[in-house]
Amino acid sequence: MKLVRYGRPGKEKPGMLDEEGRLRDLSAAVGDIDASVLGAAALRKLAKIDYKTLPLVRGNPRFGVPVKGIGKYIGIGLNYSDHAAETGLPEPKEPIVFMKATSCLSGPDDDVMLPPGSKKTDWEVELGVVIGTRARHVSEEDALTYVAGYCVVNDVSERAYQFEAGPQWDKGKGCDTFGPVGPWLVTRDEIYDEQDLDLYLELNGKRMQTGNTGTMIFTIAQLVSYLSRYMTLEPGDLIATGTPPGVGYARKPQRFLKRGDKIRLGIPGLGEQQQEVVAFKI
Amino acid sequence: MKLVRYGRPGKEKPGMLDEEGRLRDLSAAVGDIDASVLGAAALRKLAKIDYKTLPLVRGNPRFGVPVKGIGKYIGIGLNYSDHAAETGLPEPKEPIVFMKATSCLSGPDDDVMLPPGSKKTDWEVELGVVIGTRARHVSEEDALTYVAGYCVVNDVSERAYQFEAGPQWDKGKGCDTFGPVGPWLVTRDEIYDEQDLDLYLELNGKRMQTGNTGTMIFTIAQLVSYLSRYMTLEPGDLIATGTPPGVGYARKPQRFLKRGDKIRLGIPGLGEQQQEVVAFKI
Repeated sequence: MKLVRYGRPGKEKPGMLDEEGRLRDLSAAVGDIDASVLGAAALRKLAKIDYKTLPLVRGNPRFGVPVKGIGKYIGIGLNYSDHAAETGLPEPKEPIVFMKATSCLSGPDDDVMLPPGSKKTDWEVELGVVIGTRARHVSEEDALTYVAGYCVVNDVSERAYQFEAGPQWDKGKGCDTFGPVGPWLVTRDEIYDEQDLDLYLELNGKRMQTGNTGTMIFTIAQLVSYLSRYMTLEPGDLIATGTPPGVGYARKPQRFLKRGDKIRLGIPGLGEQQQEVVAFKI
Repeated sequence: MKLVRYGRPGKEKPGMLDEEGRLRDLSAAVGDIDASVLGAAALRKLAKIDYKTLPLVRGNPRFGVPVKGIGKYIGIGLNYSDHAAETGLPEPKEPIVFMKATSCLSGPDDDVMLPPGSKKTDWEVELGVVIGTRARHVSEEDALTYVAGYCVVNDVSERAYQFEAGPQWDKGKGCDTFGPVGPWLVTRDEIYDEQDLDLYLELNGKRMQTGNTGTMIFTIAQLVSYLSRYMTLEPGDLIATGTPPGVGYARKPQRFLKRGDKIRLGIPGLGEQQQEVVAFKI
């Protein structure tokens, strides 16, 4: 299933895409796309609904974050061997874990706002993993059974805040609008091989990032298992699993986001995001 | 006011301490101690209640985290000049910001559980700051008006996870039970000078930490203002403002937590916590 939340910010309704890619309203079946519908049993129940009975949604509404109530937004650093190579940094021996403030979450096509005075705001297309079932100290073998599904995320990052304002990255990862997620939460059963997904990102129509989850240093199963040893993963928690090559700060010359820039990024099968970069407003 | 949440884990009810220090049930006045009651107007309304009309609570119930729905738990590193000195590290030029996973939150007297195989779990008594009003890019002068109140926190930390498993600290900060908070949320009006609060921590009856918020490198007003430039602070967000000297990893010889250890920590006026250290259980 491709689950969505659509409508104005803060007023989103649950929906799904049918087999023809048309948006249908799920309000009669579930209150929202949240922790209560992400477990395996709840998803199976949802999948049994005859989608033809669901009302079609007219027009082209905005998409919101496809999961409501994300409790933790966890990021993984330097997790693609080809990205590690372009930065000149050694491949990490263990996953690098940081956190994105949940207040940064935004819809897949919402504007990305530059923090005031920011000179080094950067893009990162990533595969997002949404937890479906509470996971504590789970094995790699079992790890994927705790995953509800996957989505596209742009792990927007301010590099001066991340690298130049102290040793910890979180300051550069959680600014408002730095967390576009969606458009869809695609349930795990629809993904044939989560370690063979293409990722791309274009800036103003020019390809910047091209990658495949096959070059991840730590697989999704390894990451879920690893993280579950350090913190309980709760239904609705979101993991950004690292970015492939082509980010702005690793380019020569470096290129960072400017007002008016247009970003397009996606993962075939998981949908596409389009953001415009805007100036700070209070 | 001294606001609390009391009762079994997940079933806490709102309460308050009256002028004689007796626990009274607030359920008739508010649904819970959450974002909806933390703003200045809501707190003023709550303060107008004649506490004698509130039922006394019998017995000695467990205390939970005094705020429900903490969206972000933000930590500040190395924020006491005397603690920076004991670690031998230079004083930071800007606040060091990390995040504690919200899944680590626990009641003030709940057990602290050692992660499996952990050898370097450590204590940190700290002043917790609870946001009352949404804060974005607020000035130092105004910053405290966005604060609902203060509480005691133990910023429990696994030093091997924090320092030896990669460059980012979050892995060592958010393990389950690493976030005791409370017992009370003390509203800001009750604190005469937030930069003159004593902090203490004892391990098995022996004093380990002694400090005063007067030796903070960045004041609470500076921290709230600074953080609000990097992320929107939401009502209910919690900030752990750094620890004074005497943590285990800075001692000679180092001393880390072991099963059976008993921790007692507090800030006069904000109450006291008592935790027992227990072995990992799944």
